[in-house]
Amino acid sequence: MAEKSFPLNKEQLEKIASEYGTPFYLYDEKAIRDNMARFTKAFSIFPEFREYFAVKAMPNPYMLKILAECGCGADCSSLPELVLSEKAGIKGEYVMFTSNETPSHEYKYAFERNNIINLDDITHISYLEKNLGKLPELICFRYNPGSLKKGGVNAIIGKPEEAKYGLTREQIFEAYKICKEKGCKRFGLHTMVASNELNPDSFVETARILFELAVELKQKLDINLEFIDMGGGLGIPYKSDQKAVDYDEVAKKMRVEYDRLIVPNGIDPLRICWECGRPITGPYGWLVTRAIHEKHIYKEYIGVDASMADLMRPGMYGAYRHVSIAGKENESATETYDVVGSLCENCDKFAVDRKLPKIDIGDLIIIHDAGAHGRAMGFNYNAKLRCGELLLRTDGSVKQIRRRETIEDYFATIDFSGLDSF
Amino acid sequence: MAEKSFPLNKEQLEKIASEYGTPFYLYDEKAIRDNMARFTKAFSIFPEFREYFAVKAMPNPYMLKILAECGCGADCSSLPELVLSEKAGIKGEYVMFTSNETPSHEYKYAFERNNIINLDDITHISYLEKNLGKLPELICFRYNPGSLKKGGVNAIIGKPEEAKYGLTREQIFEAYKICKEKGCKRFGLHTMVASNELNPDSFVETARILFELAVELKQKLDINLEFIDMGGGLGIPYKSDQKAVDYDEVAKKMRVEYDRLIVPNGIDPLRICWECGRPITGPYGWLVTRAIHEKHIYKEYIGVDASMADLMRPGMYGAYRHVSIAGKENESATETYDVVGSLCENCDKFAVDRKLPKIDIGDLIIIHDAGAHGRAMGFNYNAKLRCGELLLRTDGSVKQIRRRETIEDYFATIDFSGLDSF
Repeated sequence: MAEKSFPLNKEQLEKIASEYGTPFYLYDEKAIRDNMARFTKAFSIFPEFREYFAVKAMPNPYMLKILAECGCGADCSSLPELVLSEKAGIKGEYVMFTSNETPSHEYKYAFERNNIINLDDITHISYLEKNLGKLPELICFRYNPGSLKKGGVNAIIGKPEEAKYGLTREQIFEAYKICKEKGCKRFGLHTMVASNELNPDSFVETARILFELAVELKQKLDINLEFIDMGGGLGIPYKSDQKAVDYDEVAKKMRVEYDRLIVPNGIDPLRICWECGRPITGPYGWLVTRAIHEKHIYKEYIGVDASMADLMRPGMYGAYRHVSIAGKENESATETYDVVGSLCENCDKFAVDRKLPKIDIGDLIIIHDAGAHGRAMGFNYNAKLRCGELLLRTDGSVKQIRRRETIEDYFATIDFSGLDSF
Repeated sequence: MAEKSFPLNKEQLEKIASEYGTPFYLYDEKAIRDNMARFTKAFSIFPEFREYFAVKAMPNPYMLKILAECGCGADCSSLPELVLSEKAGIKGEYVMFTSNETPSHEYKYAFERNNIINLDDITHISYLEKNLGKLPELICFRYNPGSLKKGGVNAIIGKPEEAKYGLTREQIFEAYKICKEKGCKRFGLHTMVASNELNPDSFVETARILFELAVELKQKLDINLEFIDMGGGLGIPYKSDQKAVDYDEVAKKMRVEYDRLIVPNGIDPLRICWECGRPITGPYGWLVTRAIHEKHIYKEYIGVDASMADLMRPGMYGAYRHVSIAGKENESATETYDVVGSLCENCDKFAVDRKLPKIDIGDLIIIHDAGAHGRAMGFNYNAKLRCGELLLRTDGSVKQIRRRETIEDYFATIDFSGLDSF
């Protein structure tokens, strides 16, 4: 069973809330460093290993700098993420540019900085050559195994053959062949066929598919892959009856396949890469919000000062998030509440029909597992201003690593000066 | 059958695209003014009528100023929307503040400007009194009719008794009674039980429920309502086999109920209000984007330079949007495409398995019915920058009414200066 914890007691949390106001995200630096150390240790049974943190999960340069100290690179999906990673000090081949439907100027930016370019389609070879003037020495392709990926269809990504990403099996051989002929010297292989997956064997199957392809690329095209990027998709146990993925189990089972396929075929050492975001920071981030209204109509509601604008997934996907009440961790769950935000969308609910202790107006409500794809996915619908981000440092101090939005931010793209004469 | 039109030919559109770059929203001022005139004419069969445009649908002060010229007020759901409406010159009781889980400083702002405050809950009476020092002279309540609303459950809002909004029938009598005792002099009644509804009779039923309640409030509490606010929820025909709501039909059928219930009970004249957004601007706004990639894998894909960050609803809700190709309006739909954006989310698709003419790289792709809840719902996930908004004036000129976001906008809440010493 996955226990849900929070690093501060009510008094400590109230002190932070009184200084910064609610709502806010809080991230636990120590827990993230410890988690990253466990992740790295598990996969260090491979001769070479690198985690490219999925910037989209938490696009904050302070967090990227912490993760870089833990050995991470950055997995970027857009130009602003490339710029952000660079500002955080992550450079060169520590940046993986895994994007799709990419405009030429974004490829150019990555190319000029020697970032690894991971192509999503075979047509992007000529697009890249035309727009950059030449191909990079190191090139990577995203593989879409289609129906070859059998071990249970991932609930979020769906069937690979329905996904917009990557090259087919036929295309991938053609793509490496073209690139080799055009002078590329170094090669990587990438896939991403899971999202929030908790079954370790799913990743082992993915590794096997990639390792087998690596062997075929060696045999058919004499291409020695330099790295294999497993993508992300490692899930976290949002619900208390779910079990976290055991990094060691995944690594050890992958190592069996590596020893069976990679070593005897002379491809060793082959770097193993991940592009995880969610499992790295997700469980160690919380959205803290205050109960400001209670409502007793056809159901019981608690209204909080955060909304879908701050955290989309519960409202957007109906995603479950554990909720606890500061100072009431040990009280009985005697009530049944919908905990709702202020958006004029009825889906703006952090919890529905949830058994919780009695909540009083003013209570601080903690929404768990919000450390990935949280603040990053916020929007400004209903002209809501997105909240800020606080970092709980290893010494117990708190640093604001993103301020909350202001009305001026919200109005930034409007030129009011033309309004009078309009 | 609802025909989908676009006000410019390919040459005109290319000229705009070359000046402003793609993607962009384009709104047709003349069509919106004409539509608003039809809407107003239909409901002018009531002695008093007012449309409070739902700012959340298109929070742009230039559009609000146009709509104000058409007689509209503003329906606001948050403080920034109140500020925006004020900047657009919409003031006092032309502003309806329909919010939920509202913090006290937002109520205060509306109160100080004499905006109409529409309370979402009975507990907000004491909250308001405590935080404002007194209650406003004019007060409105949002009614949640629960299971009394029978005429077909709205697909989006769902069953009213499952919705977080409004007061129950019991509470609503109690609420007016309290407010009258506390000195409120003027009263309004509001509901919102539909979203994107195309059945005219649904609105007639809603009107009947509100009119009957008005009669009861008169009889039981001697309260003469000053206005009834029907909320929004008037849909638009996204698909070609759907039919637009006939404003005249709704108005005339509502008038029958008005004559049956309101007039003989001495409540006439009673102002009829709407808070429509979608039908006012929705059909007269388009997202224009350029095809930048094509992809042939397990399916055929066209990659465009817009994404879910610009227009959420197709990806988020699977909402249908008509798609046309500039200059190919009369060509046969010989191909089947997924038209996709660049987000690393497989749901980032504007169209799935859509029959379209052959699309060439560089074609301008027009996504229809994007004039409401479009740019307003955009987010920055994957560090995507949201596009700008252009207004096609009645004289055929084009005015930029919102610039596209820059990387600097995206980084505005980050203090990079602390990064070196971190």
